[in-house]
Amino acid sequence: MADFSLNCPNPLHYDHIVMAHGGGGRLMQQLLAQIVLPTLQNPLLDQQHDSAVLAMPSGRLAFTTDSYVIKPLFFPGGDIGKLAICGTLNDLAMSAARPLHLSCGLIIEEGLPIADLQTILRSMQTAAAAAGVRIVTGDTKVVDRGKGDGVYINTAGIGVVADGVTIAPAMIQPGDAIILNSDLGRHGIAVMLEREGLNFSHSLVSDCADLSGLVGELLAAGIELHCLRDLTRGGLASVLFELATSCGLAFGIDETALPIHDDVRAACELLGLDPLYIANEGCMVAFVGEKHADALLDRLRQHPLGQQACRIGRVSDSPSRTPLTLHSRLGIARPLTLLSGEQLPRIC
Amino acid sequence: MADFSLNCPNPLHYDHIVMAHGGGGRLMQQLLAQIVLPTLQNPLLDQQHDSAVLAMPSGRLAFTTDSYVIKPLFFPGGDIGKLAICGTLNDLAMSAARPLHLSCGLIIEEGLPIADLQTILRSMQTAAAAAGVRIVTGDTKVVDRGKGDGVYINTAGIGVVADGVTIAPAMIQPGDAIILNSDLGRHGIAVMLEREGLNFSHSLVSDCADLSGLVGELLAAGIELHCLRDLTRGGLASVLFELATSCGLAFGIDETALPIHDDVRAACELLGLDPLYIANEGCMVAFVGEKHADALLDRLRQHPLGQQACRIGRVSDSPSRTPLTLHSRLGIARPLTLLSGEQLPRIC
Repeated sequence: MADFSLNCPNPLHYDHIVMAHGGGGRLMQQLLAQIVLPTLQNPLLDQQHDSAVLAMPSGRLAFTTDSYVIKPLFFPGGDIGKLAICGTLNDLAMSAARPLHLSCGLIIEEGLPIADLQTILRSMQTAAAAAGVRIVTGDTKVVDRGKGDGVYINTAGIGVVADGVTIAPAMIQPGDAIILNSDLGRHGIAVMLEREGLNFSHSLVSDCADLSGLVGELLAAGIELHCLRDLTRGGLASVLFELATSCGLAFGIDETALPIHDDVRAACELLGLDPLYIANEGCMVAFVGEKHADALLDRLRQHPLGQQACRIGRVSDSPSRTPLTLHSRLGIARPLTLLSGEQLPRIC
Repeated sequence: MADFSLNCPNPLHYDHIVMAHGGGGRLMQQLLAQIVLPTLQNPLLDQQHDSAVLAMPSGRLAFTTDSYVIKPLFFPGGDIGKLAICGTLNDLAMSAARPLHLSCGLIIEEGLPIADLQTILRSMQTAAAAAGVRIVTGDTKVVDRGKGDGVYINTAGIGVVADGVTIAPAMIQPGDAIILNSDLGRHGIAVMLEREGLNFSHSLVSDCADLSGLVGELLAAGIELHCLRDLTRGGLASVLFELATSCGLAFGIDETALPIHDDVRAACELLGLDPLYIANEGCMVAFVGEKHADALLDRLRQHPLGQQACRIGRVSDSPSRTPLTLHSRLGIARPLTLLSGEQLPRIC
């Protein structure tokens, strides 16, 4: 982006964010008017009032929030902007909500290249538009150099859940099949390789994707999903451990069934990481009654984000067992628990 | 808080935040289970699902977000937690929305004392409960030491706007009275004195307050408000300049009418600051037709947050004039514009 200022005169006369861009004065107005609003443009955001005022849909309201502090800001397969949209859309989708509206709170570190901010905002807009939603309200703050890390983004999302649909941990039943839509660990490994400057793989990109369209198709097809959960921080093992604990059931998963990209497997072996605990951003597990499992797999495999869909395990009702057990390729049952933290911090 | 660990054994066995508290593993679960959820406790948040699923109210939906990066975290009259609740409630109130639900996204810097986090969360809970709303969904991220500044908080808010009520900049009419509920500049000056360690005033505290109850009473009383706006970043002058510009009208304000605390005035004179550009967190301007102005003043003065309510100016329809004019105590008409940035950065 070194020649940005030559090819595209910066209307702000600044190449980098300065404190005054967050100060509520002329420079902040210029940043909003020339960079933020044209990129995220839509009639609701253009109201520029303190809140967006929106039509009330019928159904139930879903509401979620996530902050994104990923490092680096740009990684193979996406950037923090795409991630901030997809991550929050996915949180809505996991509650069976059709996403309606998003908010965007930017915490920008003084010194961020404005060209980078524009790229990130464009990614947000592209990802939101692809999902048919809009960023209807936002906020921009600037913090001093050394008190942030480029930009942190919070998005909150509102969605609508159809009456009669309840997809939640409490709905998981003994006998449920545990089904995965995609291969594990690509987001975490792609980000880590980029962060550390390791030219390990040129084909490995993050799985960062919006799952809300896929979930909408599953619901429209009448598949009786019990629970959905995206496999973000902590990866498959952490998510399943938490779910099993919260619903008091035991989950067994089959190691040989887990799809893992060769480059992810190789990077994990080389670096001593466990792919079961690596974050994903386009992976989810679905819990479904056995009689719906094949239909779910069929539907998933018809969608670009579900082509590797597979059955990875089963729910059982055995309170004496550990919440989560991995049946290894050697036939050994290995209990899985939570790690104390994240193998790879700042991954989302 | 030096003796916190002596008086109150920390259930986490950590006095300070470490990276693993944001990692999605055991330490993060402990932080949520032992510190965050008990403090913010409510049945919706306790669902711990990816989104909160809520009853859909009737009316229109208001949606807003703000991030809070104030420095220092604790200041006379409040802390970042109280501010993060009141600020977002106020944004809803300014759109005539009755606040319903809040989200909370924490970006915590490694090393934050857990006792400080608890104090901040308690402030959030207290302020939310006082307004009759709950934090129904949240997210916690931890960033490395030196990549944050204690804690940044994003809150998003959902509210409901009654059918038939529209309070927005576009509703401002020539002839409207401009009315202020409270004195100017206390938040900015109190925070700045605390930040700089100036023992200038022992009586000066931030005006940080939730205005949603007051606005609800005004609406219930049938006062036909045209527009409301809280006077945060950039203060009275910036907010009025933006509003006047956006609706293509001219606002005149009377300097002698502006209520300013003696200590604020003195601090501003000493430090070369203009109180008209200092941020407030419990101040708003209301635009109302002349025939409703006295009723509005009466109502405001009956409320603890409106006892100093006064008429400060008038809207006129003169496109040739500057958008915002201050009539000074010497009778001089001084055009006011935006400053390039904020006199006091990191004020909210």
